[in-house]
Amino acid sequence: MTDKAVVPTRATIGVIAEEAGVSVPTVSKVLNGRPDVSAQTRERVETVLARHSYRRRSRGPARSGPPLIDLCFHELGTEWGLEIIQGVERAASDLGVGVVLTELGGKHRPEQEWLDAVLARRPLGVLLVMSSLSAAQRHQLESRSIPFVVIDTEGEPPKDVPTVGSNNWNGGFAATQHLLELGHRRIGMISGPDDVLCSRARVDGYRSAHAEAGVPYDPQLVRWGNFDAGKGYVHGRDLMMLPDRPTAVFAGSDVQALGVMRAARELELRIPEDLSVVGYDNLPLTEWLGITTIEQPLRAMARTATQMLVALARGEEPPLRRVDLATRLVTRETTAAPLA
Amino acid sequence: MTDKAVVPTRATIGVIAEEAGVSVPTVSKVLNGRPDVSAQTRERVETVLARHSYRRRSRGPARSGPPLIDLCFHELGTEWGLEIIQGVERAASDLGVGVVLTELGGKHRPEQEWLDAVLARRPLGVLLVMSSLSAAQRHQLESRSIPFVVIDTEGEPPKDVPTVGSNNWNGGFAATQHLLELGHRRIGMISGPDDVLCSRARVDGYRSAHAEAGVPYDPQLVRWGNFDAGKGYVHGRDLMMLPDRPTAVFAGSDVQALGVMRAARELELRIPEDLSVVGYDNLPLTEWLGITTIEQPLRAMARTATQMLVALARGEEPPLRRVDLATRLVTRETTAAPLA
Repeated sequence: MTDKAVVPTRATIGVIAEEAGVSVPTVSKVLNGRPDVSAQTRERVETVLARHSYRRRSRGPARSGPPLIDLCFHELGTEWGLEIIQGVERAASDLGVGVVLTELGGKHRPEQEWLDAVLARRPLGVLLVMSSLSAAQRHQLESRSIPFVVIDTEGEPPKDVPTVGSNNWNGGFAATQHLLELGHRRIGMISGPDDVLCSRARVDGYRSAHAEAGVPYDPQLVRWGNFDAGKGYVHGRDLMMLPDRPTAVFAGSDVQALGVMRAARELELRIPEDLSVVGYDNLPLTEWLGITTIEQPLRAMARTATQMLVALARGEEPPLRRVDLATRLVTRETTAAPLA
Repeated sequence: MTDKAVVPTRATIGVIAEEAGVSVPTVSKVLNGRPDVSAQTRERVETVLARHSYRRRSRGPARSGPPLIDLCFHELGTEWGLEIIQGVERAASDLGVGVVLTELGGKHRPEQEWLDAVLARRPLGVLLVMSSLSAAQRHQLESRSIPFVVIDTEGEPPKDVPTVGSNNWNGGFAATQHLLELGHRRIGMISGPDDVLCSRARVDGYRSAHAEAGVPYDPQLVRWGNFDAGKGYVHGRDLMMLPDRPTAVFAGSDVQALGVMRAARELELRIPEDLSVVGYDNLPLTEWLGITTIEQPLRAMARTATQMLVALARGEEPPLRRVDLATRLVTRETTAAPLA
């Protein structure tokens, strides 16, 4: 933790222009995300901006009307995304701020194209959901003094990037402990991708709950996937067809639990008599379906991140740059003691 | 159908100012949604603008960066809202347009406050989902030459308001016909509010399917509610507790079907053996839950509306101002012949 990254050098736009071998208006165009600069020139200017850790003095929004923030999802997916949107939307509304929503969604919008639009739009700030910026992109925002906050985290974010997540380790621990206490000894777990931090934390929680209870766990029962229903179905089916099948499955998300439950139905396994299922997220639909799950406070996470972002945009330093909200077990009808 | 509403009078801003007894800059401020005008003055200016059917020549977006459209929901609700968002988002992305998302959500944002923000932001246009504008609000947009399109329709929209919906009558007909063909003779129906056009169209489809099959229907089995799971639960429970209970329920939405299914579970009625259930919308989750439903092409509706809006913003006249996309039955596991 040195001060080096925090105190920007005081290079002027003239110095940047000279070093990059371009005119001052050209540097200005690059800073404003204008499209009428060649890719090559742009790259040269960005490199010099990065070298100097250049930061433009904030000039406020470029538009008329109430200020905007940008909310960017890698993929909107399920009700999960809707919970985040509602949390952001309501907090932004309370703060008198509008929300521009973007889904990068694979081929639909290249990240750089989106980022250029953001630079040109000059929002108060940017909220990123389960998506991350390259170091270069991060610097592009920083050099324009556009703050950003990450909601949930795909990977390990650099220390000084403000993030709001939830306590995934506790979630994994609580779900597994619940199943162990019910008497389950072979517990399947389907997590997200193994390079995503929250998936790994949950698997660690699963392992620790076993260790705490003095129950060995079978690594064969832990699967990495993603958070979709499809993976829940495939891995769930696979787990249930093992010779010594698990009597319970802890899924990586509520929609993934739907996939597990579908696989169970096809194999004529009753829930919870033959198979206990725990979801993750506590989406509204789980209440109606009676799914036992881990509550992840998505709306509160979104609200916290929005407030943090607006504070940063106002030049305030948030008390914490890394906030994890608590998760908790919600017991419903898909979990029970295993049949003897 | 007269030309009166279509050809605006050519009142200048000077004429408006004179009639309203204010200065030209004041009229300009009102047109630009600036907050520094008293409510009283504003109202006077709006009245004169409306009297002249004033339309400002379109001046293009007021901001730097790619153009924006405003997408406004009354309430975001369930996966239903997410389908619309994704349809709009992807179509907008293809057209190089950003999306500002607002949920009016009851007390969270008064409609007029939102509309003022829109006037100040000067987007390409406005998409309204299941929400409607008053005549005065409508004129506020028209006088600023900001086009708008309604997705789905709460009530009967004025003839010249561009709308994209789906064929609700056909949906109601197809669901009921399916249940009649399976041999059901007492079919419960839970619809949306009775003052919402799409609910009424579906109930009419339900009635016509009965008439077509020569089966009388029992008005006692038709319930009006909303599209939430809660109402599905309450009405579903009520229907199932009737002395001569229906053997099938056609719900107003997929989430409402979840409420019906929960009520059935509590009353120990098996689905589909004891009770058939048909949902509405064909949300992604229904595939995993095996719910028979009516597909409402929400993403396609959203895409069509977005394209229509951008065309209007470009001064093109869309070939149709009222588009209804087709609905269709998707048969899955929650419907079967009634037990003899």
